[in-house]
Amino acid sequence: VEIFRDYKKSIAAHIEAYLSEWERNSGLVNRWGADTANRLRDFIKGGKMLRGGFVLLAARMYGADVEKVLPIAAAMEFFQSAFLIHDDIMDRDTLRRGKKSLYFQYEEMARNEYVGEAKRAGQSLGICLGDLAFFQGFELLSRVECAPNIRQSLTALASKEYAKVVLAQMEDVYFGLLQEEPDEQKILGVYRHKTARYTFSLPLMLGAIFAGTEDRQLKILSELGEQMGLIFQIKDDEIGLFGDNSEIGKPVGSDIMEDKKTLFRLYLMRESSEEERAALKKIFGHSRIDNKKIAFVRDMMRQKTVLTHVQKLLEKLHNGSRELIEKLEITEEGRKRLENLLDYSIKRTF
Amino acid sequence: VEIFRDYKKSIAAHIEAYLSEWERNSGLVNRWGADTANRLRDFIKGGKMLRGGFVLLAARMYGADVEKVLPIAAAMEFFQSAFLIHDDIMDRDTLRRGKKSLYFQYEEMARNEYVGEAKRAGQSLGICLGDLAFFQGFELLSRVECAPNIRQSLTALASKEYAKVVLAQMEDVYFGLLQEEPDEQKILGVYRHKTARYTFSLPLMLGAIFAGTEDRQLKILSELGEQMGLIFQIKDDEIGLFGDNSEIGKPVGSDIMEDKKTLFRLYLMRESSEEERAALKKIFGHSRIDNKKIAFVRDMMRQKTVLTHVQKLLEKLHNGSRELIEKLEITEEGRKRLENLLDYSIKRTF
Repeated sequence: VEIFRDYKKSIAAHIEAYLSEWERNSGLVNRWGADTANRLRDFIKGGKMLRGGFVLLAARMYGADVEKVLPIAAAMEFFQSAFLIHDDIMDRDTLRRGKKSLYFQYEEMARNEYVGEAKRAGQSLGICLGDLAFFQGFELLSRVECAPNIRQSLTALASKEYAKVVLAQMEDVYFGLLQEEPDEQKILGVYRHKTARYTFSLPLMLGAIFAGTEDRQLKILSELGEQMGLIFQIKDDEIGLFGDNSEIGKPVGSDIMEDKKTLFRLYLMRESSEEERAALKKIFGHSRIDNKKIAFVRDMMRQKTVLTHVQKLLEKLHNGSRELIEKLEITEEGRKRLENLLDYSIKRTF
Repeated sequence: VEIFRDYKKSIAAHIEAYLSEWERNSGLVNRWGADTANRLRDFIKGGKMLRGGFVLLAARMYGADVEKVLPIAAAMEFFQSAFLIHDDIMDRDTLRRGKKSLYFQYEEMARNEYVGEAKRAGQSLGICLGDLAFFQGFELLSRVECAPNIRQSLTALASKEYAKVVLAQMEDVYFGLLQEEPDEQKILGVYRHKTARYTFSLPLMLGAIFAGTEDRQLKILSELGEQMGLIFQIKDDEIGLFGDNSEIGKPVGSDIMEDKKTLFRLYLMRESSEEERAALKKIFGHSRIDNKKIAFVRDMMRQKTVLTHVQKLLEKLHNGSRELIEKLEITEEGRKRLENLLDYSIKRTF
């Protein structure tokens, strides 16, 4: 995101400093100190650092020292990396951000270096690397310079919210295996906890807590985060369906192949005849589908009222978010930034 | 352990209270709130709660309120569970503490309930459950009632030490795949970080930090933990090789089948002729070995000087530990308990 470019730079510098220190200290333990530092460095750098950016944005909106909030922002990126590393293992995704996913890098290393079971080695080392990044996130949180009771609130809130992310992830895994169709409420539940609260509400709240913001404002931020997060996730699904390969960093149609239970998919199924549904079920959830089949799904979505249905929901969320932004007691510059961000979220095409 | 029985009871009660609260709150998110509460409850209850016990022991040795230190003790058990859950996925261990391991429970659930890939489902939900237990551990740490700067030290130390546990685990995974033989130093490095510091040093230090103990004492505890932890791990390996099925809760010879790089194995290989080594390599690392082959390995270890070699190392560690215990400025009752524990560690047969 345009607006976050300057934020990303300072977060990246903080992460770099932390990882250099980690590499120095952990080098005494064994060779994996340097290995993990290098891989995480590369991996985190490749991200948009949205979550870290939201921490900085919120701190600034409420007039806090942005410099001092950097460990929290950096922590968000370690947690995010950890989740992605574990997600890729669960989804067997070999690509992430246009590069080989981390467990897959280890799998290849194992294949090149020795005789053992490369797949299992890749998964095992991937699980470890994710775990490590969680601990690094918490270590960063323990370093924040602020009133001690504030530091406690940060760790308490983060661990509680992340625990809920895991529950949503479990639900998501479960949906991926079920033949049963989750309804709109269940899909929105996963979106809310796996994406919205995690990507938006939590970082915004952490930045605001650091700034000493009162509870009523935190509640509004929490709600705003959910609404903006839903917009974000819905647009993400749209891009996954209608975007092209070069922009999104993962194979086109991978959500279709994985039979990801998106709102688009739900609306499409709901509006299809028995016959059409049967045809769709031969496409969704099957690996190696070709461009023709993807085009077929896209066309059907365009023909049905799927897109207008989604559009309506987006508008509702857009209006809701606007109203919430009005209620925030923040600097005018902060309000402007939030509104820009909201507009961008609605309009983005990748 | 006898001495920890009373500790285990109060830690278990604290864990139960925490999980009930978790179940109530997380039930609002989705069905996995109750599912995870039940599985973790069963799983944690089945453990010896050594790590939690050490926290209580240290707090008491330094005269702190044992009641208030319970969240730290409980946290240790959540972290431990998380590591074990992930370990079992990496090792493909279907048994843990005489019951089905957790990822395997999910695998069976998937097999019974639906059509998807049961193995992948089990692994994915297992990864999630481990992640969750990490977050719960940190949430518990954030709840400790103490001076805020002390709380910060707890989280900072725990996250740093756990990060090192992960590095040792990566090394362990790597050894498991390599044809190359790790030397004594490397094996002891894994023991030190994966077991000794993690199981002994960290909980002892956390309990002492809570009690406001000075840095010099913490250093002694850290060192004592390493020595006692090495004793513990070596005895664990011994039991894994020479113990019987009913006592150890995992199949006899599983360390041999997994080709676990223990000190016993290293000494045995070192003292064997070319010919003997070739015979041993047909046993170590092969699944489905029979009792005859296990007996063959055991006999060879008895014939060579493997056991006396190990015995010598244990004595050295025993004496070192005794000397360190002398240096601690603790209650006499605490010193007595530590000494009993040390004796028990050396003598235990399961």
